[in-house]
Amino acid sequence: MFFSSDNAGPVHPQIMERIVADNAGHQMPYGNDTIMPEVRDRLREIFEAPEAAVYLVATGTAANVLALACYTQPWQTIFCSKVAHVQMDECNAPEFYTGAAKLTLIETDSKMDPSKLEAAIKGQKPGNVHGAQPGPVSITQVTERGSVYSLEELRALTAVAKAHDLPVHMDGARFANALVALDCTPAEMTWKSGVDVVSFGGTKNGCMGVEAVIFFDPAKAWEFELRRKRGAHLFSKHRYLSSQMAGYLANDLWLTMARRANDNAARLADGLRKAGATFLHEPQANMIFASWPRAVHRKLHEAGARYYLSGGTLDGPDAEPIGARLVCDWSVQAEDVDAFLSHF
Amino acid sequence: MFFSSDNAGPVHPQIMERIVADNAGHQMPYGNDTIMPEVRDRLREIFEAPEAAVYLVATGTAANVLALACYTQPWQTIFCSKVAHVQMDECNAPEFYTGAAKLTLIETDSKMDPSKLEAAIKGQKPGNVHGAQPGPVSITQVTERGSVYSLEELRALTAVAKAHDLPVHMDGARFANALVALDCTPAEMTWKSGVDVVSFGGTKNGCMGVEAVIFFDPAKAWEFELRRKRGAHLFSKHRYLSSQMAGYLANDLWLTMARRANDNAARLADGLRKAGATFLHEPQANMIFASWPRAVHRKLHEAGARYYLSGGTLDGPDAEPIGARLVCDWSVQAEDVDAFLSHF
Amino acid sequence: MFFSSDNAGPVHPQIMERIVADNAGHQMPYGNDTIMPEVRDRLREIFEAPEAAVYLVATGTAANVLALACYTQPWQTIFCSKVAHVQMDECNAPEFYTGAAKLTLIETDSKMDPSKLEAAIKGQKPGNVHGAQPGPVSITQVTERGSVYSLEELRALTAVAKAHDLPVHMDGARFANALVALDCTPAEMTWKSGVDVVSFGGTKNGCMGVEAVIFFDPAKAWEFELRRKRGAHLFSKHRYLSSQMAGYLANDLWLTMARRANDNAARLADGLRKAGATFLHEPQANMIFASWPRAVHRKLHEAGARYYLSGGTLDGPDAEPIGARLVCDWSVQAEDVDAFLSHF
Amino acid sequence: MFFSSDNAGPVHPQIMERIVADNAGHQMPYGNDTIMPEVRDRLREIFEAPEAAVYLVATGTAANVLALACYTQPWQTIFCSKVAHVQMDECNAPEFYTGAAKLTLIETDSKMDPSKLEAAIKGQKPGNVHGAQPGPVSITQVTERGSVYSLEELRALTAVAKAHDLPVHMDGARFANALVALDCTPAEMTWKSGVDVVSFGGTKNGCMGVEAVIFFDPAKAWEFELRRKRGAHLFSKHRYLSSQMAGYLANDLWLTMARRANDNAARLADGLRKAGATFLHEPQANMIFASWPRAVHRKLHEAGARYYLSGGTLDGPDAEPIGARLVCDWSVQAEDVDAFLSHF
Repeated sequence: MFFSSDNAGPVHPQIMERIVADNAGHQMPYGNDTIMPEVRDRLREIFEAPEAAVYLVATGTAANVLALACYTQPWQTIFCSKVAHVQMDECNAPEFYTGAAKLTLIETDSKMDPSKLEAAIKGQKPGNVHGAQPGPVSITQVTERGSVYSLEELRALTAVAKAHDLPVHMDGARFANALVALDCTPAEMTWKSGVDVVSFGGTKNGCMGVEAVIFFDPAKAWEFELRRKRGAHLFSKHRYLSSQMAGYLANDLWLTMARRANDNAARLADGLRKAGATFLHEPQANMIFASWPRAVHRKLHEAGARYYLSGGTLDGPDAEPIGARLVCDWSVQAEDVDAFLSHF
Repeated sequence: MFFSSDNAGPVHPQIMERIVADNAGHQMPYGNDTIMPEVRDRLREIFEAPEAAVYLVATGTAANVLALACYTQPWQTIFCSKVAHVQMDECNAPEFYTGAAKLTLIETDSKMDPSKLEAAIKGQKPGNVHGAQPGPVSITQVTERGSVYSLEELRALTAVAKAHDLPVHMDGARFANALVALDCTPAEMTWKSGVDVVSFGGTKNGCMGVEAVIFFDPAKAWEFELRRKRGAHLFSKHRYLSSQMAGYLANDLWLTMARRANDNAARLADGLRKAGATFLHEPQANMIFASWPRAVHRKLHEAGARYYLSGGTLDGPDAEPIGARLVCDWSVQAEDVDAFLSHF
Repeated sequence: MFFSSDNAGPVHPQIMERIVADNAGHQMPYGNDTIMPEVRDRLREIFEAPEAAVYLVATGTAANVLALACYTQPWQTIFCSKVAHVQMDECNAPEFYTGAAKLTLIETDSKMDPSKLEAAIKGQKPGNVHGAQPGPVSITQVTERGSVYSLEELRALTAVAKAHDLPVHMDGARFANALVALDCTPAEMTWKSGVDVVSFGGTKNGCMGVEAVIFFDPAKAWEFELRRKRGAHLFSKHRYLSSQMAGYLANDLWLTMARRANDNAARLADGLRKAGATFLHEPQANMIFASWPRAVHRKLHEAGARYYLSGGTLDGPDAEPIGARLVCDWSVQAEDVDAFLSHF
Repeated sequence: MFFSSDNAGPVHPQIMERIVADNAGHQMPYGNDTIMPEVRDRLREIFEAPEAAVYLVATGTAANVLALACYTQPWQTIFCSKVAHVQMDECNAPEFYTGAAKLTLIETDSKMDPSKLEAAIKGQKPGNVHGAQPGPVSITQVTERGSVYSLEELRALTAVAKAHDLPVHMDGARFANALVALDCTPAEMTWKSGVDVVSFGGTKNGCMGVEAVIFFDPAKAWEFELRRKRGAHLFSKHRYLSSQMAGYLANDLWLTMARRANDNAARLADGLRKAGATFLHEPQANMIFASWPRAVHRKLHEAGARYYLSGGTLDGPDAEPIGARLVCDWSVQAEDVDAFLSHF
């Protein structure tokens, strides 16, 4: 009953086997291994983007901040949601990597609203030397609150960005979960909807530690390579990043795992709903924000369930509802879900 | 016949097996896995440093620059050799991570000379607000030219640093190779010789991508944790770093691999010497800088040997001596060495 | 009728005469002039702080960001009002000088509320490596909206900061105007109320371009000197900064000018009130935020009055109220005020 | 007998009078004063560069580092002489303002040699992601050792830069002194010789604190404005910078002062030569590096002469030669020189 995060799960055996298979003999370092071209070609194919520049790094924060840094001047501000990972969970890495740019926060507890984005951009008064200049818009898909932007919602946001000539970054740490939820193509969810660069997550969805950064305009390629090296994120034994990503993409494993994670989250949400839990938002992918009486949390914790509480602790009146964040990774089984629900 | 770099070699099976074994089930992320305490304890034991703060990162550059950043103010300068990895091969990562400090280069083509270090420190005129203030001394062991500082040489350098109240960092990307060459203890080669923080390399010596940063004074621990996160180097699935390091240290595998690499380099150097090659320095660990006639380089390349040339290309007069850098990793076999030598 | 800003006014003749007088002969550069000790002593006396470290720079932004940088680590966040000068009008200079720290904005349109500050600090979850760590609290006195914190209000804010062990910076670009408004001592408005470092403004109040940075704890002195030099803010011909400040402080000129500016602002506010204008806040120092019908703005502009509009332009219905910011500097005369009011 | 630095001298009366004259009434802030257009036009005329972007800052370091930052990426290295002001006397300000770029030092004790510059650029191996990429070349004219590049020497250096597509910056803290020494036009010494941006010094040559930054290609204008503001170098009461520069340029005062300073330095050098002093270099502008017996230094110091010693102190054998740096500013008189020489 492990629902604390999708970064707590194991590596899928297909990926591990690929790593073991790629371990034989010598390979040139720093991205010059023989596997990377295969990975690059496959991602270009998946994204219907034959010119895209494709790179691998080992952490989601590295993917986000290196991608953003290529589109942000130090005197600019990045527009993102108030609960964005880049704001809440990266310990000033975006500021560090952009050379001290600012983040302007859009008020929301889930998705950004295009009109609030518009107001925030106008509020920066571009051309006024005293304030930060408008920079990129960063959108997280799946959001940090488990919701998923529809293609229409995405396009409404990117339209605002484009109207102000601002680039768009997508934090796709849970890209596959969103894609499966929307049942659309990777191209539709990115460049066809106005996204310029995407952090394409692997780590949370069954890899060991690998994320792709995909620039639909390859003009940023060399700058990215320099920024990656300067950030100490260029792996010498790069083959092990390539190998993970190759294993992840083979046989649509990435989609299969995401689908399973989403399905189990849906099963869990159904059970919670029937048990009377209330939801912050309707869960759309593999993350659930819900609340139910403290007494049940106590029972679950005693039974060994792992997840994060919010807005309260186990101490207090039995009946008071306390929030929970529940995340299903690919390795969670229907039985785990049912075991969890049996405590309600 | 692959001698281009020790970062081109595979992961040792013992380490790969450990990774596979540690892949079962869920593990808490961000260094809170159950393997890391074992790694921490083992490294403290190996270094006879029960209070040491021990952290893992995935690249050697990350280890170096995060360690240095904890000891460098932005208005200071780091003292290092002119050929140091931090100067030549990290694309301004030390400057980036220290918040724009400077590097002051000690003239040398291998080891730093204490009197030159002394002159360089004095040349910075500490207390004069116009110039960069003296900061840490960074020593690479094995050096980038394949030489190894003796304990006496190390202590002569750190004595200069200490006389000026400057901290000392050791870039130990090839720590094990140096240790085996000196036949001393890890404590003797570090804190007993005046080293404050060491980058303890694993990647080049049979791991997939893991380096430990060991602070002998744990006062820097929390700052390091923040810098690591801010640098995007805190792994969510940290267990796979812990697991590599655990597998690396078990049964003294790290020493066994280093010994084998050094032995094969010695075998190679012996053969080259007999064949009339000349050496930049007497090889002491697993790297050789030597030169021999171009005609032999041509034969070797035709036979598929991989290594870097220096000071010339394959084009030119047959008899002209051209330099080579040859590196043995743990996976190189005596037969590879002999096959290489057979072309002379 | 020039009310656009107090940085548009001339230098007071007493200060200009002092500069001319100090122009004779040679003077040692970089703060080693013979005037600076006089300035330092006088400021220590005024602030009843015999140990204070006292420095001069030429711009208010430099004073703010150098002071803040001495108290902010790159992984921290500064707490300030949403309308603070450091947030709105310094083009990411605080981020730049702190090595890429963040600013956390307290919702307000004038003064910060202690409970909101408390909530913001707690929201950063100190000790959680994923988010920015709490850093200094920056308070602007006079605020950017023309209000003045009472001593009680100041102490309520600094008490929150101190409860979390956070240092407190005061942006005193209009320090003298606030002091005169509160009728208290400089010590009461700063260190006796929990302020650790103050930007003591001169430029807006009749100087040419000089601000003092005063650290009540001199431990930051050397770091400030290095940061000032590294920021390119150490004047070689420093005597002209010293001289301005000496002229500013002599005969309580600084208080006389602030009093005059405040008095004229009060006269202006009285007239506006009688004319039916509405106020964003009750003006307390030398800045007024008020609104009145557009038709009157048109008349004023035709008559040559200079000030900033907010929330609308001169185009539109006559009767619609449009906001204005009016600032009195020391050189504004009662006749200017009366001439302005005559258009209502 | 004040020869310690040209930044110790007073402001020329013509400039002070202009400042006093420009002090009347209100002026718009931040460069929107009515004087700045006059200054811009005059400098464009002087430099025969009608399109040039012209800005004012208050310190020489600010001029240098803001100019360089517009041409340097954080992963690049700036090429400059080992004794350059940007290396020796700016406390890492170039690294800070460029976002942590590196400086590569050309070995010299005065002027840079084109062949050494060429070797240094090639040594950076452009296109190799591991090392810093080549960035701008910075040339100081007058050099920090009192020598002046001839136009031929300048062009030989800039030709090397241009061959590698690198921009060229001139640190002209003593621009006027060099110009007078070469007896050429400002255009010849800058853009006609391949210089892209110049720090045009005023402070050391009779101003209070003002330097112009002149971009011959105005494409960098907006970036410079943002960088200046972000560096806290945009003056609110900018009219006092404009006014200084206007006074400096009027009636060719800048050339008259430089000529006088150079003439007095020549008079001093002649006298020293006759007295048997030896010179590091033949003095060409207003700075002299010479040595003579310690006993004479003692006499001079007792008589109140002010200048810097190098390579020794007043303590030691009488006859031993000790080095001196002597600088003449515009205010030094022939009588001061003769009084100095009378002690030999």
